[in-house]
Amino acid sequence: MTNKNGSDAINELLATYGETGGINYLDAAATLPSRKTIEDACADLMSLMFPGFRGEALADSEDLPDITKSKIRNLRIRLKPEICKSFGDFPASDETKKKADEILDFFVSQLPEVRKLLWTDIDAAYEGDPAATSYEEIILAYPALEAIAIYRMAHLLYNKVPLIPRIMTEWAHSRTGIDIHPGAAIGSHFFIDHGTGVVVGETTTIGSHVKIYQGVSFIARSLAAGQALRGKKRHPTIEDGVRIYAGTTVMGGDTVIGRNSTIGANVFLTKSVPPNSLVYYEEKEVAVIPKRSKEAASASEDGVRK
Amino acid sequence: MTNKNGSDAINELLATYGETGGINYLDAAATLPSRKTIEDACADLMSLMFPGFRGEALADSEDLPDITKSKIRNLRIRLKPEICKSFGDFPASDETKKKADEILDFFVSQLPEVRKLLWTDIDAAYEGDPAATSYEEIILAYPALEAIAIYRMAHLLYNKVPLIPRIMTEWAHSRTGIDIHPGAAIGSHFFIDHGTGVVVGETTTIGSHVKIYQGVSFIARSLAAGQALRGKKRHPTIEDGVRIYAGTTVMGGDTVIGRNSTIGANVFLTKSVPPNSLVYYEEKEVAVIPKRSKEAASASEDGVRK
Amino acid sequence: MTNKNGSDAINELLATYGETGGINYLDAAATLPSRKTIEDACADLMSLMFPGFRGEALADSEDLPDITKSKIRNLRIRLKPEICKSFGDFPASDETKKKADEILDFFVSQLPEVRKLLWTDIDAAYEGDPAATSYEEIILAYPALEAIAIYRMAHLLYNKVPLIPRIMTEWAHSRTGIDIHPGAAIGSHFFIDHGTGVVVGETTTIGSHVKIYQGVSFIARSLAAGQALRGKKRHPTIEDGVRIYAGTTVMGGDTVIGRNSTIGANVFLTKSVPPNSLVYYEEKEVAVIPKRSKEAASASEDGVRK
Repeated sequence: MTNKNGSDAINELLATYGETGGINYLDAAATLPSRKTIEDACADLMSLMFPGFRGEALADSEDLPDITKSKIRNLRIRLKPEICKSFGDFPASDETKKKADEILDFFVSQLPEVRKLLWTDIDAAYEGDPAATSYEEIILAYPALEAIAIYRMAHLLYNKVPLIPRIMTEWAHSRTGIDIHPGAAIGSHFFIDHGTGVVVGETTTIGSHVKIYQGVSFIARSLAAGQALRGKKRHPTIEDGVRIYAGTTVMGGDTVIGRNSTIGANVFLTKSVPPNSLVYYEEKEVAVIPKRSKEAASASEDGVRK
Repeated sequence: MTNKNGSDAINELLATYGETGGINYLDAAATLPSRKTIEDACADLMSLMFPGFRGEALADSEDLPDITKSKIRNLRIRLKPEICKSFGDFPASDETKKKADEILDFFVSQLPEVRKLLWTDIDAAYEGDPAATSYEEIILAYPALEAIAIYRMAHLLYNKVPLIPRIMTEWAHSRTGIDIHPGAAIGSHFFIDHGTGVVVGETTTIGSHVKIYQGVSFIARSLAAGQALRGKKRHPTIEDGVRIYAGTTVMGGDTVIGRNSTIGANVFLTKSVPPNSLVYYEEKEVAVIPKRSKEAASASEDGVRK
Repeated sequence: MTNKNGSDAINELLATYGETGGINYLDAAATLPSRKTIEDACADLMSLMFPGFRGEALADSEDLPDITKSKIRNLRIRLKPEICKSFGDFPASDETKKKADEILDFFVSQLPEVRKLLWTDIDAAYEGDPAATSYEEIILAYPALEAIAIYRMAHLLYNKVPLIPRIMTEWAHSRTGIDIHPGAAIGSHFFIDHGTGVVVGETTTIGSHVKIYQGVSFIARSLAAGQALRGKKRHPTIEDGVRIYAGTTVMGGDTVIGRNSTIGANVFLTKSVPPNSLVYYEEKEVAVIPKRSKEAASASEDGVRK
């Protein structure tokens, strides 16, 4: 805790750039994709999926074709160097540039399908939530839609480009509290209500018409094993029509929740259940006791239970 | 998964704007209120409630009257067209403009009351949290205050303007992880500690001097029924002086937590409790077992319980 | 609910600035540190710790010494007045300015140590998460790293400057859902996976090589007592090598989790456990029942358990 003078501290800090992180850190850092560029692209992708979503003027639907073309052209121009950087090749070779172009071709070609899929998610939100008063409200004020839309687009790039898909889903995670790994496979009509605390792990499979609430997690068993498990199916399979209430955790790559099952709140589920099941904990009565004196009450409130 | 050329994809995407979302989507999108304008207004409303809050210069308290008048004038000018757009009438008819003005008159007239109410919330935070060292710390660094302030202002517009109140509370949700529906009715001296994961549903009623912690949810029973339940009282009633610990869920429109009750952490409560109750689960002993060998330990850690 | 005219409302609002919050509120507000300046500084501190992190051009590692020096000089210039304001002395006396300089000297002198510590956190994340494909991914897309980095820097200022450390950690909380109080003491190799909903209270002590998941909370017992507990050890001690699964709450200043223990998901732990323990709830079987008719199913789904 010596008070080095500023110049010593700066030199020491500079030294750590070389030391910690290994010899290649600075070279790697020099070609990291720009988080800011990718986050801005996410915002633009949202307004490509939902024109008007971010409040940009939509003077006339006649202008829409030109606006859309220019948005897509612009996105390609900005994303291409970031893709090259993600491959660690920047300034990029012709080969890497070609690869980036092919990835962008594929990405753009799939956007109409993504939009159709997202409309099924909006349908599911409207049907599922009595507080929803209109489709517009869902587009403007449902965090789940943003998280799902960005996930569906990031999923297109998963296993094709390093880093960028994860930066995209973390942008949505930061804004919504919903953490969906770009590797997950998710069917149509997916609805997440409220959403804060939701975690969908990398190898999760989710069917269509699935509805989950805040705090639901699909996680890996054997987290102890770390890197040894890379690439293995580690997260559960959730079949069509399943509904899972708030705070429930489903764990393990061989855990399958059969179609049309309902899982109650705060369940910790580590084994498969057959289709059409209703899963909850056996009756667990709460103790409701009158508070005695003020002193007694505040003593027993300590741990609430001890 | 064909690689359409870019122009095909754009045409297909344009087609989906008309197809999915029905024939009216583009017209509706053209008059959606601007999320960005409303989010900026939220930030300005926060600094109207708490001058100095966002670090703007407060040269002299003599300037405050002029600064305040100009802030309010500015807010009205910016919010009026957004209100008209929310009514789907933009460019707006004289009638809609008049309605927007009346709503803004009402909104501004209620701001002094909101500020008085918010001061009771600050009092509650200061009294309730030993980590709070000053009122200034609460204003500058307690996410709950932002979520509650925006909720209290959005509540003024609830049932008067579509969309805007929800955009406001979702702005706060995104920043704080606290999701309070603008329809909820909440008394004075309301305190939320930490806050991430809190959900307060549309028809919740909360008395005064209520204190809740992170992850507490007030949710609807019978979520299955969806739109059929719209407008019904679906969320619980929390009476004065109730304290609810982290992670507890209270469910159902007929569930009433009697005044001055304390509910422990992680309780799932679906029925009413009388005033002055202490509610917790019966003794649930944890198993504390020594780990045997490294191998055994990592095997049984898998599911932690199987 | 009268419709005052706008001018009345403004005067009333102005009056509340003086009334609520006591006579000193406006004077205090005039010298509040600027949240925006401190939040911008947090972003700059992140790119000082991880050059390239925010996508700024890193043309050449030869430029790094000059860039780093200029970043630090710039940070000092901007933070100095905010520190003076935090001491309530602005425009500042010479004595306060000197104190601010000494604090900044100390802060800068510790940054190399912080960077070394953060590299152990990155190591822990890479080793612990099979979904992590590279160190770069952790720097660019793991919210925990941002929350931990800002905590480690805010901790340097804890008990030295009012307000600013808490504004820093709340910036990270807002972006990540991870709420670490700057007062906590946390060892090396700390990893938080997913992270949304994590709470680490002010007097928590955490050893090295500790790994926690989303929703884990270290909280105070006897929250009832409020301000009376200020400054006391209120939060638990977590020894080296402990791993705690999602949603678990550990409570109380005298609660010690012994080294190398593993705590399962959703445990509510209010007492100490010896080293090398495996802690979980006794077998709790879930009820898995087939749904009968559609009507019966939706009836019993109400509360899931009643």
